[in-house]
Amino acid sequence: MSHHFGTIGVVGTGVIGASWTALFLARGLKVIVSDPAPGASEKLAAFLEKEWPTMEKLGLSEGASLENYKFVPSIDPYLEEIDILQENAPERLEFKRQLFAHLDANTPKETLLLSSSSGLPASKFVTDCKNNPSRILIGHPFNPPHLVPLVEVVPHPATGDAYAAKAMEFYKFLGKSPVLVKKETPGFIANRLQAALCKEAYSLVERGIISASDLDTTVTSGVGLRWALTGPFMTNTLGGGGSFKHFMDHLGPALQSWDGDMQENAFDFSSEKFESLGASVQEWMDKVDVDAVAKERDDFLLQFIEAKSKATTLK
Amino acid sequence: MSHHFGTIGVVGTGVIGASWTALFLARGLKVIVSDPAPGASEKLAAFLEKEWPTMEKLGLSEGASLENYKFVPSIDPYLEEIDILQENAPERLEFKRQLFAHLDANTPKETLLLSSSSGLPASKFVTDCKNNPSRILIGHPFNPPHLVPLVEVVPHPATGDAYAAKAMEFYKFLGKSPVLVKKETPGFIANRLQAALCKEAYSLVERGIISASDLDTTVTSGVGLRWALTGPFMTNTLGGGGSFKHFMDHLGPALQSWDGDMQENAFDFSSEKFESLGASVQEWMDKVDVDAVAKERDDFLLQFIEAKSKATTLK
Repeated sequence: MSHHFGTIGVVGTGVIGASWTALFLARGLKVIVSDPAPGASEKLAAFLEKEWPTMEKLGLSEGASLENYKFVPSIDPYLEEIDILQENAPERLEFKRQLFAHLDANTPKETLLLSSSSGLPASKFVTDCKNNPSRILIGHPFNPPHLVPLVEVVPHPATGDAYAAKAMEFYKFLGKSPVLVKKETPGFIANRLQAALCKEAYSLVERGIISASDLDTTVTSGVGLRWALTGPFMTNTLGGGGSFKHFMDHLGPALQSWDGDMQENAFDFSSEKFESLGASVQEWMDKVDVDAVAKERDDFLLQFIEAKSKATTLK
Repeated sequence: MSHHFGTIGVVGTGVIGASWTALFLARGLKVIVSDPAPGASEKLAAFLEKEWPTMEKLGLSEGASLENYKFVPSIDPYLEEIDILQENAPERLEFKRQLFAHLDANTPKETLLLSSSSGLPASKFVTDCKNNPSRILIGHPFNPPHLVPLVEVVPHPATGDAYAAKAMEFYKFLGKSPVLVKKETPGFIANRLQAALCKEAYSLVERGIISASDLDTTVTSGVGLRWALTGPFMTNTLGGGGSFKHFMDHLGPALQSWDGDMQENAFDFSSEKFESLGASVQEWMDKVDVDAVAKERDDFLLQFIEAKSKATTLK
């Protein structure tokens, strides 16, 4: 199974890179990994040790082993033997630009170079690549990558279709749910959708219409609960008795009138508004054990992902 | 347990009213229910029969029985003995206005009158109530009410605080997650949040940046999956390492820049755009068994709600 994708390189082992490494190992792949930060090797080993039982629970592929990775002081001597590289360096343009120029110049022409970039589009950091920039594209995971299925695959305008297809295939092989973003767009897809909802949430709480805690309940007990199973288009379609057109004919005017009111009362991102909003949120957070929430969230995320993996029509 | 809330009246047994009835019965309450539509009694009986195993699975309260309801040709002779009434009539202003004037005039002053209204705010339909409009407010469920925990409790400006508090208490007793909407606002909370995200989703698909199917996957495999567990404010706070302020300092500028691009490319709700969007969605739906999706969605919804009911810090 794994031989098709060969050896995987991981550059950068912060939160994202370490999580990718756990997933690659669980899928039976061989991984060569590097990070210049002091203590990075030990931190990675500790993370993998801690998360391995979770990977076992989600199911290990044939040949999967915690022993299948090699932490190296520099990735350079290994660039010839790597088939796919997942980059997780800091989100600084100049840094990524130099890094990709170096990787592009020193890897075989067909090596797939994938970036975990969450904000910078690839077109911005491939500008100094002279060898084969068409094999460079973004595979942006949703934190934490070893659990959450979503990966946004974002080619830049000069990425070759075959490389984008290979990236999609690779992430599917890993058990992920990759989506293809056909044109570079600021924030890609997930961050834009989140920002759209958050902006309205900020306005509603800042204007005193609902508390921050109740707003979150509105999402976790209603809107988000349903969206974990059917996305906006399927939800609209089911709401229209099986027809998106019927939904739109029926609810389009209401949507538009709410939108008008939302625009009139839009959160303006001013520091005054942020201050007032922050105070409302803090009032709630002061009463909550955030670490306990984070832990329970991860437990349930795992449980939901496991459950959903048995669904036949849901995604 | 149930005696505190007495006898419940249900007016209107369409999808929402029938679902409320199932829930009230499962909580051990006595229900008097009425709907003028031909065959309404038989349809309700069939619905309750079909859904009762689900209610058993979610757990029945002491004294719960399918026998505890009485379908009556008119609610009028029973208005004296009803303690809380949940109204589920059509969303037509004049109709609701007359209905509430009638209910207000013919019920004891303290009877709590709750409306399932999804769009019309109560201030619009209490205008002809002369007896005690302060006990009238909205308890808007999320479909289907016997499964989804969210209820939006929306007082009108003259609703008494004690009545709003009693409505919150009643829905909590039912095992729901009521949220208090402190000021009437078009679309309340959930519909506005959904509309905000949908508007951006419509734009992204209509502009050809992502397919409708992949957009839904972005939500079901990432954004929505996480929001089923932690809402926007908790998610932001966890993203800021336990501090909403830290998140905002770090990501506020990015949010604002995405927002700028979203506004420039906002979906305009024109019929041309809807046409083109509808075609993209239909292309996907033609390949999908929507009924099978709806059925599996409901199965998983039940499973997720059951699982989450065991959480200690999540809501």
